[in-house]
Amino acid sequence: MYPERVVRMLTRRFFVSPCLCGKQRCMTWKHLRSEPGPDFGIFQSRFDWLENPRNSHSLKAVVLEVPDWINVAAFTPEGKVVVVHQYRFGMRKTTTEIPAGIIEDGESHENAAKRELLEETGYSTDRWEYLGWVEPNPAFQNNRCHQWVARDVRRTNRQNLDDGEAIAVQELSVEEVRDKIHKGDMRNSLALLTLSRVLDVWGTSA
Amino acid sequence: MYPERVVRMLTRRFFVSPCLCGKQRCMTWKHLRSEPGPDFGIFQSRFDWLENPRNSHSLKAVVLEVPDWINVAAFTPEGKVVVVHQYRFGMRKTTTEIPAGIIEDGESHENAAKRELLEETGYSTDRWEYLGWVEPNPAFQNNRCHQWVARDVRRTNRQNLDDGEAIAVQELSVEEVRDKIHKGDMRNSLALLTLSRVLDVWGTSA
Repeated sequence: MYPERVVRMLTRRFFVSPCLCGKQRCMTWKHLRSEPGPDFGIFQSRFDWLENPRNSHSLKAVVLEVPDWINVAAFTPEGKVVVVHQYRFGMRKTTTEIPAGIIEDGESHENAAKRELLEETGYSTDRWEYLGWVEPNPAFQNNRCHQWVARDVRRTNRQNLDDGEAIAVQELSVEEVRDKIHKGDMRNSLALLTLSRVLDVWGTSA
Repeated sequence: MYPERVVRMLTRRFFVSPCLCGKQRCMTWKHLRSEPGPDFGIFQSRFDWLENPRNSHSLKAVVLEVPDWINVAAFTPEGKVVVVHQYRFGMRKTTTEIPAGIIEDGESHENAAKRELLEETGYSTDRWEYLGWVEPNPAFQNNRCHQWVARDVRRTNRQNLDDGEAIAVQELSVEEVRDKIHKGDMRNSLALLTLSRVLDVWGTSA
């Protein structure tokens, strides 16, 4: 390892990486060891001991091992957006979001998107388009959120909720969605990010 | 409480709320009790026992009590975006993001935004604009992420990193940012959402 002063100087001035892998701006920390932490059901915690490439200082980090998630921006043939209202335990309030859920063990993210839309809302379609995936929280979660858009969705079934769910469904026009976002009535970051790929959510180019 | 069959029918067909507070589509669960869970330093866990208004089924939920966060979209006078490269323990890789951090106890989110930009990058400015706040994860986190834009930023100081940080700074043109997002080299959902308020990040109207 280079002396810390030299590494700091190089990193600062030339943006070269303190990691020795050769890739520019790679800042990989050395993994020392891991230990499982408490299991919370919807995620499992893990402790990693890592070494800072900049100063060889070692650190204990908590990582949540979370299954991948899906988000669905669903549009009716009339161009309305299907939203879900549900009480969220984290924020302790009823939110307005888009259909979303957890990918089950061994399930494809495409199937999870179709299943969650159907279960949470009773809506379905055969017009699906994959938008991509994002990192919900790269700092302490290891999962991805896959983003789907469903077009020409129709109410074909009944909702099929778990005992642990209570969800109300509503169709909103794009203007109503934008208005809710503007008023602060839709703030779920992942829902907003998925919508931002298919709508001008902030009304900036309206 | 109404019979479950009636509540389900009303909720489904007319989007009335199963909660008795009178607000339409309020789905508030009854809070039964709470218990502290393990403390992870960067967040504290808590268990809540709640009662589903739809069917009176009770459930134990985990909530992470996380301090509020800030995100900063910082632009140089030339219109370049200041990005940070750092190894993220959750995703186990070096990411490209915008300056971000945790609001300290008693600190305002405005001050946290200014402090984090300065500490992580050495850049500063007096042109600050508040964009708003979003919910990183309303399902199991109780915190907000405040979004700021800083204009005409200049490198005025040295980086001031903790022992537990290693961050490389770079200025990217808007086109380079968009290219990185397009290639999947920038995927932090909160960073993308903050940028989406000031840039056409997906290149949809380009």
